[in-house]
Amino acid sequence: MATLPRDVLHFPAESRSFLEPHLPPKDRGNPSPFPFTTVTFATSLDSQLALSPGAPTALSGPQSKAMTHYLRSRHDAILIGVGTAVADNPSLNCRIEGVGGYGGEGLDGQPRPIIVDPMARWHFTENNKIFQLCREGKGRAPYIITGVTNPPVNKEAILNAAGGKFITVNVNTTDTGSHRLDWKNVLEALGKEGLKSVMIEGGGAVINSLLVPEYFSVISSVIVTIAPTWLGEGGVVVSPPRRHDDQGRAIPAARLENARWYPFGEDVVLCGLFRS
Amino acid sequence: MATLPRDVLHFPAESRSFLEPHLPPKDRGNPSPFPFTTVTFATSLDSQLALSPGAPTALSGPQSKAMTHYLRSRHDAILIGVGTAVADNPSLNCRIEGVGGYGGEGLDGQPRPIIVDPMARWHFTENNKIFQLCREGKGRAPYIITGVTNPPVNKEAILNAAGGKFITVNVNTTDTGSHRLDWKNVLEALGKEGLKSVMIEGGGAVINSLLVPEYFSVISSVIVTIAPTWLGEGGVVVSPPRRHDDQGRAIPAARLENARWYPFGEDVVLCGLFRS
Ligand SMILES: NC(=O)c1ccc[n+]([C@@H]2O[C@H](COP(=O)([O-])OP(=O)(O)OC[C@H]3O[C@@H](n4cnc5c(N)ncnc54)[C@H](OP(=O)(O)O)[C@@H]3O)[C@@H](O)[C@H]2O)c1
Ligand SMILES: NC(=O)c1ccc[n+]([C@@H]2O[C@H](COP(=O)([O-])OP(=O)(O)OC[C@H]3O[C@@H](n4cnc5c(N)ncnc54)[C@H](OP(=O)(O)O)[C@@H]3O)[C@@H](O)[C@H]2O)c1
Repeated sequence: MATLPRDVLHFPAESRSFLEPHLPPKDRGNPSPFPFTTVTFATSLDSQLALSPGAPTALSGPQSKAMTHYLRSRHDAILIGVGTAVADNPSLNCRIEGVGGYGGEGLDGQPRPIIVDPMARWHFTENNKIFQLCREGKGRAPYIITGVTNPPVNKEAILNAAGGKFITVNVNTTDTGSHRLDWKNVLEALGKEGLKSVMIEGGGAVINSLLVPEYFSVISSVIVTIAPTWLGEGGVVVSPPRRHDDQGRAIPAARLENARWYPFGEDVVLCGLFRS
Repeated sequence: MATLPRDVLHFPAESRSFLEPHLPPKDRGNPSPFPFTTVTFATSLDSQLALSPGAPTALSGPQSKAMTHYLRSRHDAILIGVGTAVADNPSLNCRIEGVGGYGGEGLDGQPRPIIVDPMARWHFTENNKIFQLCREGKGRAPYIITGVTNPPVNKEAILNAAGGKFITVNVNTTDTGSHRLDWKNVLEALGKEGLKSVMIEGGGAVINSLLVPEYFSVISSVIVTIAPTWLGEGGVVVSPPRRHDDQGRAIPAARLENARWYPFGEDVVLCGLFRS
């Protein structure tokens, strides 16, 4: 076995067991058009993902980082919004010991990065981290989900050379000009690519648009890590749109069923699901 | 022993033990001018105390309600802001079996309600729940902390008749006309009344004004219950003011030390403290 890269991560077996009931089954003979969809993110006590888009925000400890990478190894795909792609220049690979590029064969266990970019506005070159890692055999090339029918050819060339592509889905443009993807279309498109599981990681806009009743039936699992920190007003907040009952009274937006809390280092990991 | 009121609550011994390290010591020979100060509240995953001020918001389960009343029985005083007093017409007594009015002698174990009302704007009559409970021997009369030197005589009469009073402390009025109490003055005033412990329960404005570095040294314990629910944008949010470092960069507002998470029914209870 080749020497392991220095940034390899370890996630101990004893920590894996509590996650197992909340993960995609290892052998999945599911005829559903939708992948097993896990929504996962790390927040502060005041439900923020970051101090501001792109600000480096040390929320949770090294154990939680290793957990994220273990979760990635258990999904065929990992998905972020273009806001996160632009702000963070993310690696979007999996660095757990034993996956491809980190002691394993080829790209085994490396998830497919998916970037939701309705207007194809993400500006990238082959120097972006994600393409560097592809060249080093440490990660897969991204699929970009867009509403644009003819994405820019220069971007398409970079993507295709690395083994990625644009996937065009239907976009609803509202009266006010904002364009909304239907998550069911997005997930169905991933299913058609043979991706049987996807972990949706963020950021704020992606999560908030997902935590609505329309999508409860396609969310298979929710895994939220909470750090004992208040970031303070003004960051990237997770809080879904307000809901009302028939009489126009505000009601809670979403509640997890079968909620289980696992203390994990200084943080807590909450696992649950939606009644569909 | 008289029959117990129907609304008496039980908090089992096995649940009490995890809270013990986070509570005021039972025998306190502390010469500090400040009471042992516990900050405690229940939030949603999106850090909200309520759907809106005064909206009945079922956040946490019956166990958590009993826990709140147990915590009340362990403090000499319980404190809320005038916003909560106005919105909720709260009872502010303790209904755990064994305290005065609920199986115990006199008013033993009943905490002193404290309402922070800088402008003495809370309109109450002897029909408010809190005064009804006083008359029934099920709770103490409130002390109202205000910045007003001569509070309205009609209110003072109602308060005094029940055994309560106004306590005037210094108020800082800012350029923009807003009036701010210094929490150290408030806590010192409670200490002078012989109250050796206080549990600060909310609401949002009270908590947000407390979770700032200036007051970390006077907060002895923090106990937050989190329910696996997102209330959705627009409620009463707990998120302290933004903090910045010397270079003007945003930094996390507050982090708990020795954080411990206790799964509790569907909820989790987080206990911790601030490094002072
Ligand atoms: N703590 C964590 O676990 C975590 C995880 C991931 C990200 N983050 C942080 O989150 C921050 C970024 O969050 P963000 O809210 O700015 O960006 P984001 O959610 O990553 O991306 C938002 C953009 O994605 C597109 N999008 C999302 N949902 C859509 C929908 N339903 N339909 C159509 N388009 C949709 C929109 O693009 P258009 O604007 O082009 O319409 C939207 O502006 C970064 O600071 C990142 O570090 C934290
Ligand atoms: N879930 C829970 O655990 C919990 C607990 C308690 C309350 N709540 C909810 O919280 C909501 C009320 O919250 P809220 O934010 O509207 O009201 P609040 O915090 O109870 O009271 C706010 C008011 O108190 C005064 N105040 C607070 N801090 C002050 C300071 N440092 N200096 C001077 N005055 C100060 C101010 O009065 P002036 O406006 O006169 O200046 C302020 O407007 C209600 O819906 C209640 O049900 C929930």
